[in-house]
Amino acid sequence: MPLSYKVAILGATGLVGRTMLACLQERQFPVRELVLLASERSAGQVMEFQGRSHLVRVPSAEAFADVDIALFSAGAAVSREWAPIAAAQGAIVIDNSSAFRMVPDVPLVVPEVNAEKIFDATGRPAPIIANPNCSTIQLVMVLKPLHDRYRVRRVVVSTYQSVTGKGKTGLEALQSELAGVKPERYTHFHPIAFNVVPQIDEFVEHGYTKEEMKMINETKKIMGDDTIQVSPTAVRVPVYGGHSEAVNIEFENDFELDEVRAILSSTKGVVLKDNPAERLYPMPIDCYGRDEVFVGRVRRDLSQPKSLNLWIVADNLRKGAATNAVQIAEQLIGRLQPKAVAKLSVSEGR
Amino acid sequence: MPLSYKVAILGATGLVGRTMLACLQERQFPVRELVLLASERSAGQVMEFQGRSHLVRVPSAEAFADVDIALFSAGAAVSREWAPIAAAQGAIVIDNSSAFRMVPDVPLVVPEVNAEKIFDATGRPAPIIANPNCSTIQLVMVLKPLHDRYRVRRVVVSTYQSVTGKGKTGLEALQSELAGVKPERYTHFHPIAFNVVPQIDEFVEHGYTKEEMKMINETKKIMGDDTIQVSPTAVRVPVYGGHSEAVNIEFENDFELDEVRAILSSTKGVVLKDNPAERLYPMPIDCYGRDEVFVGRVRRDLSQPKSLNLWIVADNLRKGAATNAVQIAEQLIGRLQPKAVAKLSVSEGR
Repeated sequence: MPLSYKVAILGATGLVGRTMLACLQERQFPVRELVLLASERSAGQVMEFQGRSHLVRVPSAEAFADVDIALFSAGAAVSREWAPIAAAQGAIVIDNSSAFRMVPDVPLVVPEVNAEKIFDATGRPAPIIANPNCSTIQLVMVLKPLHDRYRVRRVVVSTYQSVTGKGKTGLEALQSELAGVKPERYTHFHPIAFNVVPQIDEFVEHGYTKEEMKMINETKKIMGDDTIQVSPTAVRVPVYGGHSEAVNIEFENDFELDEVRAILSSTKGVVLKDNPAERLYPMPIDCYGRDEVFVGRVRRDLSQPKSLNLWIVADNLRKGAATNAVQIAEQLIGRLQPKAVAKLSVSEGR
Repeated sequence: MPLSYKVAILGATGLVGRTMLACLQERQFPVRELVLLASERSAGQVMEFQGRSHLVRVPSAEAFADVDIALFSAGAAVSREWAPIAAAQGAIVIDNSSAFRMVPDVPLVVPEVNAEKIFDATGRPAPIIANPNCSTIQLVMVLKPLHDRYRVRRVVVSTYQSVTGKGKTGLEALQSELAGVKPERYTHFHPIAFNVVPQIDEFVEHGYTKEEMKMINETKKIMGDDTIQVSPTAVRVPVYGGHSEAVNIEFENDFELDEVRAILSSTKGVVLKDNPAERLYPMPIDCYGRDEVFVGRVRRDLSQPKSLNLWIVADNLRKGAATNAVQIAEQLIGRLQPKAVAKLSVSEGR
């Protein structure tokens, strides 16, 4: 009998939480039991999963009892409060917030890039595994195979980020502004309809935002190479289908464009969509709801040697968040003994 | 009595043409007589200028008789046909199309950057003066003062361009898509509502679009320095207030941020809007209808020495087109003898 797991989702009613649920279902993750958790405001809602209704509850220590895998997406403060509690109960927490990403012992994982970091030398998974920032995930998915071949020195990246990066509130802000409603407070700091806002999250240091610093720091950690330099500008645009990125990469070694294309075509989870003559390149409307990372406009940078320009788009709710988290959980299948089974074994052994 | 001029606008009914008319009026350009020209489709319309009605006619050689200054904005094909005819009649043509920009003898002018190119050694204006590409104008407005002080080596720029770059059709495409109308043909190649299209104009060489090649080539010509390297990605976004640009600049010499800010603050035509703590930075909704180029998010690039990141926004119909053309015309005031006056002098002299 194949192993199956008790899975909890904290932040189940949010855009990412709902997408996590959809991913578990679509990818036929072996869920034996499901625990849906959310804030007081959303508790009491009923959500469907595999044809059964599940009541959404507020988190509690008991709610995590016997949970094997807990997917968190309710913000950094909630993660900081509940991840240690869930982990103490023996659950493996896969955390989509920024709370633990830069903690040295916490693996920061994009499975296609560094799945091996999930487990320690003895093959035991880390109690808390961090899911990276959305803009960083789609970037490293493309950087990694090219780094392995040519060594990435420096990346200049400008983002065109979806309003869903701020969840339901972010999406509703665009919709209501387009409907002519003037909000009391702008979710994206400023109007986003017919506008472009060069600020995502708060400003932290040297004139950079938190979102930008995440791209600098998380890229190094995921790629396992502190020498990789990233110079980012993170920008919100009035789209909801996914994040786009204009990326300029300087390599240590020179490349052939045909080989770059061949590498990207054969990278798992990456789709090369690059035929200018047919006006084919990735765009948010086409990437919406897709699990892959799309790359196009692959061309030599004419301004200096060994440099490349390309364009990356991915659905920030999918590969940028929920899909990546569920893929981390998939790494645990077969390598994590479900607690129910463990208990059963113990009682049988008696 | 101050000199005043007979001015023609070819493409008068377009978005840029209308903005040229507005600029002439707002800036109190000394217009003695106005000739409004447009295609057959738009001829017959009546437009107001300084309280008087003007009938829009189709262009003809006679229409340019005695015209001192002809502002063209009706596309490259129309410019190629009519600019030589207007110039043969003695008009100074200020051409907003790409037709003549890269012709060696034709000055390509942003007055704040290279106004001196308008005139030859004897002080005579060139018969045809080219108005640069919109994305390039706002870029060089910021590059020039910094180049003078630190020498620009290389620029990586990603644009976020307004739908008005494709004129009225471009604006209407966004409006009708948002209203739920499915067009027969997409003006921006693909849907633009809730989307980002990484293609502006056609693909020409090495995987770059015409728009991107303009930024590479025109920057060198306007700055008068072929060593300046530009690596561009030109992208259409669903806004109409202006073009935004995320710009990464590598200098030959190091800089102090305070000095960079001081230089930009004191550059004519540039407005420094840069206070992250107050969430102050340029955005298209604020730059709409403004003649200046706005710059913010000025910060040191942490990825390599002597490098700077910044964010530039300008109304592409204003400084990116009409305002710049009218400013070129302003350079002619007092240095160009109006034909009416010349004739008068000749007849008086007899």
